[in-house]
Amino acid sequence: MLVVMHRQATAEQIDAVVAAIRRMNLTAHPMPGATRTAIGITGNISAVDPRSLEVLPGVEELLRVTKPYKLASREMHAADTYVRLPLTPDPSPQRGEGRKTPPHPQPLSPEAGERGEEVVIGPGSFTLIAGPCSVENEEMILRTADFLVSKGVHLMRAGAFKPRSSPYSFQGMGLEGLDILARARQRTGIGVVTELMDTDNADAVEQAADIIQIGTRNMQNFSLLKRVARTSKPVLLKRGLSATLEEWLMAAEYVMAGGNYNVILCERGVRTFSDHSRNTLDLSVIPPVKHLSHLPILVDPSHGTGKRDYVPAMALAALAAGADGLLIEVHPDPDRALSDGAQSLDFAGFGRLLDSLRRLAEPLGRTIN
Amino acid sequence: MLVVMHRQATAEQIDAVVAAIRRMNLTAHPMPGATRTAIGITGNISAVDPRSLEVLPGVEELLRVTKPYKLASREMHAADTYVRLPLTPDPSPQRGEGRKTPPHPQPLSPEAGERGEEVVIGPGSFTLIAGPCSVENEEMILRTADFLVSKGVHLMRAGAFKPRSSPYSFQGMGLEGLDILARARQRTGIGVVTELMDTDNADAVEQAADIIQIGTRNMQNFSLLKRVARTSKPVLLKRGLSATLEEWLMAAEYVMAGGNYNVILCERGVRTFSDHSRNTLDLSVIPPVKHLSHLPILVDPSHGTGKRDYVPAMALAALAAGADGLLIEVHPDPDRALSDGAQSLDFAGFGRLLDSLRRLAEPLGRTIN
Amino acid sequence: MLVVMHRQATAEQIDAVVAAIRRMNLTAHPMPGATRTAIGITGNISAVDPRSLEVLPGVEELLRVTKPYKLASREMHAADTYVRLPLTPDPSPQRGEGRKTPPHPQPLSPEAGERGEEVVIGPGSFTLIAGPCSVENEEMILRTADFLVSKGVHLMRAGAFKPRSSPYSFQGMGLEGLDILARARQRTGIGVVTELMDTDNADAVEQAADIIQIGTRNMQNFSLLKRVARTSKPVLLKRGLSATLEEWLMAAEYVMAGGNYNVILCERGVRTFSDHSRNTLDLSVIPPVKHLSHLPILVDPSHGTGKRDYVPAMALAALAAGADGLLIEVHPDPDRALSDGAQSLDFAGFGRLLDSLRRLAEPLGRTIN
Amino acid sequence: MLVVMHRQATAEQIDAVVAAIRRMNLTAHPMPGATRTAIGITGNISAVDPRSLEVLPGVEELLRVTKPYKLASREMHAADTYVRLPLTPDPSPQRGEGRKTPPHPQPLSPEAGERGEEVVIGPGSFTLIAGPCSVENEEMILRTADFLVSKGVHLMRAGAFKPRSSPYSFQGMGLEGLDILARARQRTGIGVVTELMDTDNADAVEQAADIIQIGTRNMQNFSLLKRVARTSKPVLLKRGLSATLEEWLMAAEYVMAGGNYNVILCERGVRTFSDHSRNTLDLSVIPPVKHLSHLPILVDPSHGTGKRDYVPAMALAALAAGADGLLIEVHPDPDRALSDGAQSLDFAGFGRLLDSLRRLAEPLGRTIN
Repeated sequence: MLVVMHRQATAEQIDAVVAAIRRMNLTAHPMPGATRTAIGITGNISAVDPRSLEVLPGVEELLRVTKPYKLASREMHAADTYVRLPLTPDPSPQRGEGRKTPPHPQPLSPEAGERGEEVVIGPGSFTLIAGPCSVENEEMILRTADFLVSKGVHLMRAGAFKPRSSPYSFQGMGLEGLDILARARQRTGIGVVTELMDTDNADAVEQAADIIQIGTRNMQNFSLLKRVARTSKPVLLKRGLSATLEEWLMAAEYVMAGGNYNVILCERGVRTFSDHSRNTLDLSVIPPVKHLSHLPILVDPSHGTGKRDYVPAMALAALAAGADGLLIEVHPDPDRALSDGAQSLDFAGFGRLLDSLRRLAEPLGRTIN
Repeated sequence: MLVVMHRQATAEQIDAVVAAIRRMNLTAHPMPGATRTAIGITGNISAVDPRSLEVLPGVEELLRVTKPYKLASREMHAADTYVRLPLTPDPSPQRGEGRKTPPHPQPLSPEAGERGEEVVIGPGSFTLIAGPCSVENEEMILRTADFLVSKGVHLMRAGAFKPRSSPYSFQGMGLEGLDILARARQRTGIGVVTELMDTDNADAVEQAADIIQIGTRNMQNFSLLKRVARTSKPVLLKRGLSATLEEWLMAAEYVMAGGNYNVILCERGVRTFSDHSRNTLDLSVIPPVKHLSHLPILVDPSHGTGKRDYVPAMALAALAAGADGLLIEVHPDPDRALSDGAQSLDFAGFGRLLDSLRRLAEPLGRTIN
Repeated sequence: MLVVMHRQATAEQIDAVVAAIRRMNLTAHPMPGATRTAIGITGNISAVDPRSLEVLPGVEELLRVTKPYKLASREMHAADTYVRLPLTPDPSPQRGEGRKTPPHPQPLSPEAGERGEEVVIGPGSFTLIAGPCSVENEEMILRTADFLVSKGVHLMRAGAFKPRSSPYSFQGMGLEGLDILARARQRTGIGVVTELMDTDNADAVEQAADIIQIGTRNMQNFSLLKRVARTSKPVLLKRGLSATLEEWLMAAEYVMAGGNYNVILCERGVRTFSDHSRNTLDLSVIPPVKHLSHLPILVDPSHGTGKRDYVPAMALAALAAGADGLLIEVHPDPDRALSDGAQSLDFAGFGRLLDSLRRLAEPLGRTIN
Repeated sequence: MLVVMHRQATAEQIDAVVAAIRRMNLTAHPMPGATRTAIGITGNISAVDPRSLEVLPGVEELLRVTKPYKLASREMHAADTYVRLPLTPDPSPQRGEGRKTPPHPQPLSPEAGERGEEVVIGPGSFTLIAGPCSVENEEMILRTADFLVSKGVHLMRAGAFKPRSSPYSFQGMGLEGLDILARARQRTGIGVVTELMDTDNADAVEQAADIIQIGTRNMQNFSLLKRVARTSKPVLLKRGLSATLEEWLMAAEYVMAGGNYNVILCERGVRTFSDHSRNTLDLSVIPPVKHLSHLPILVDPSHGTGKRDYVPAMALAALAAGADGLLIEVHPDPDRALSDGAQSLDFAGFGRLLDSLRRLAEPLGRTIN
């Protein structure tokens, strides 16, 4: 932290700032310069409101130096985080029959469990999480799960609870949707990624999901972050529509500070003046995320662009840019989807994209999983 | 809604779009033009995903015409909404003694109740809601409440639950903070405006508050919006950091669709590239809000600017621009505040601003309350 | 300037940074802290690329402390700048008759010149510059000038050269438009504010204008800024669509560094995600401009909002927020205007706004001129 | 174009709008709907100010349908544009010896000219334009040119005229810099891409450059666009900091409407709230550019990120996303560069990136040139 004094600041004003810093049990380092004095601050400043010194007489501005996040920071944890998901179907009973959350996720498929296989999200691999925007009925979920498994995709996304900007739009199937996902998981062995919107449904979603998704609009829903910090499942944390990288990592910090270290970031487009796509997909955030944090990062090109024709180009670009995988919308019949059909690929389109991704992964030394 | 066909679209493609529209039980109005055909759509299109037609062959783009909000719209409700709060202390017992939510708010002060007085938020008046960012202890809340009452201010803001970007920052006093607010309300007769962050604390906040605040980061927390739609208290709905006017009115629509028509909008700055202030206070949203909606709108110049020196100018501008009041941070000792001290006025500064507002209100035909 | 070292930076890396700073003839102030070292830099750092140190091994980031603008800064020039325009008609001959630029502007009206009157732009007064977007013909300019003079307005805006986003739109009348403005000026004594788009027409515009306008899209047209720095007329510098306050003041610095100190800033809306108005009028920039600079600032509510119905509210708000005046579009028949009719007031609307501004100016201690 | 009437609009108001449309020699298509009437407009509406109808009584809003750009549009010109540059040194004499602009560019290298070789910018290939931010002296330009030629790169970027936000920063070597570029071109056969900042230097830059660059800050400098429309050289048009895709294509339209059809677009990052990189590189603009226009598009990852460590990832992503090439900063000694050193690669870093690009190009079916 650095306090920059005004050019006309008096010696008394400088002394007063130094004294204020000392009262905070911090160390002040005055630096007289050609035109003004700056005062460096060292010590444990995480508890200080960066703006409380700014209002003292003679202070021009206050610059923060250290990052406010710790657990999410690569400085504190140099090695990359790998989030591991065992490949075995969920043996837990259906809802209504005494479903309990196991302390550790069970392998997604029996054979894989025996062979000790798992999906690993992190550098080196490139993980695909594909599926429809929302659970619409059991048939379409099973068709999608079967298709994905046939293509070697291990994780399916689908929302049972849907955040919709209009109260008059389809709000998701709710608990019934979770049951459908559980049956698809049991039948096909596919892992389930689904969104949690509120603390009321946290137990049910934790039970149903292999990865719990926190949506864009809830990135700073701190009560919800504290709640998922106490679950046994990894958390997929989407970037807020106008979140800076620091705010995003601070949201991850909330989850990690509560004891859940399995956080997966997901870039899905930010809001800018630009109107050629639904959002502005910020692939340029990938290198700084990798520099500042050890957490894996996925990209959602479906929400990022909002148009299915633009999805494949952005999916390939995400791979080339160093992302650790994709969250991508695939639907058996996108033109009849209840939500977000315009940005969903159909099965054929997804198959073609998968081929392209595999060809591109090789020279990059990456493995699609 | 208007479907714009591609310049080279075939007659078959146009027919297919017309057929698709009819399958939705809507009416299609083809308009052949010099270079392309456009197809108007009329009927009840609120249930249609605006992008589902966009992916049909030959379609260039799809333009939406009607607004998606109804209850919040001035078209549906031409007269201005006035939110009325009776001036009488809360006669309800303290927490732990069987606190119950009265079906209608009680007058804030006994005399006012007898005289039938009330605070009215809406055009013609200019309502001040002032107070500290957070409840820090009972003494500072009582001092602030006494001060505000002495200045003729009827509503106090103060957060018991605080959304903080860092998990290591002060998170508010919680239920204890609500109790402090209830005592201040009982002693001074001041109305209480306080934030609700999650459904878990909805009953407690509804009990303590005269107005329930929904914060910026929760503007699209739809579970929370549905919950406050069922409370008996007016809702102050802050604009999201990157919310369009339409999204903001849709969030209000969530509350109103659930049966709570007493929604007060609050502009508090949006996020842009601009870095001279904490956020970019968007006073220019006031005229369009008044044009499109009948709901009252307040302005929060404290969060909007982030610096106390800039607050008075923006407070006066908000009045001149046609806002219905202010949400403004006042603290007995801002330089020692636990949060947001840098943007809080002290008592003397608030007093000076109040004088300026009163002078300015007169030629505008407005009454400060 | 402050160099923040990486947490794991070695002593050698720190020494290397200190040495690099010394090679730039600057002074290094190392500050070892609890978790990392920061190195303050003092001396004449205006010539240093702030990012050249950032790439040295062990450097985490580089924070700039001093402002890059000098002449535009209030620190260097504490007193407010007042731009003064004498009130006398331009006695210079018409174009084609040997027009010359006088070293100092002549009074705009003969009587005023005798009485030593002038328009003063700066704190205390509130200056209106009104008129049509573009010069369309002589008749409408003379009508507008007569109307404005009758209302006590001393300065008229009108573009002879128009920056249009489409090459197929009306591009302005050019030199013929300047001649029309000169005749209006001579006949009515009104001062002329008109835009210069390129160096080719600099002499002609300097001759015709009492104030030379630099448009939004040219705020960082540095060749043009250097050219107007050599003119004898004040420069009205509109803020760029996505200019930070620092960039804007640096553009003013270009003009001042070339010797022209009469710079008037003009906020006219910035580009954000927000879509309820043509641009987002950033009234919140006014207090920081006044804090950081001594230059006067006007507000253009016409471009800021893009809709005439929203103009009066923003004009009043600009006055209340502390702006030094308005640049505002007025047209004899806005619905038939060749450009920007939708955001222009008609004469009656402008008259009503003027009355409101006068009523509001009084309690603010300001004089409309 | 579509006029949407207010819900309460009267039949007279609708008739008045229809009449206004007819007075413009356009055809009106009224569409009465369940809750309101919309009026479609067909005919040649390019000359109409879209907002002039919006102010008529009863009109709610006006929606534009057709795109304002024609020559830049893929609808008007379905085939991709390929910009072709012959590979031969410029045989024209040096400046001061009667330099003339040849009507068509000469091959860049003698052998290539004999063999009829050329650089082709457009789909299928991936063209690299590399070099320092600015011409600093002859030695570094020659070293860079030799290095690039040795790597098979045919085009070098380097600025003789530099747009700098501070008047106190290095402004480029000017005409002397152009001479240095001409000598490098003659000696090595490398093609030259250099920026034109104003019409005064248009002849000199046209003479020196194989491609004339129009910088970000001049994207809407319409006088400059009209001037380069009259040159014989292709124009590289950088996207403005806050330009929408439509505005960008309209700027290209200015150049094409003046007769120069060889326009190359270049995405270089836009300005958003995001602060993790210098700008927000908008790779997602590539698919819409390819959809809406036939012009080639390059990506500048150096300005896009502002940090050399982030450049390779974004360069690879640009290739994968479908860009037609890169504009990229390479410097013999970036840490001593006079400008933008922090975002420049050194020779070794560029060599490594080139290897990666070549490996990635193959599965994409692209050829690096």
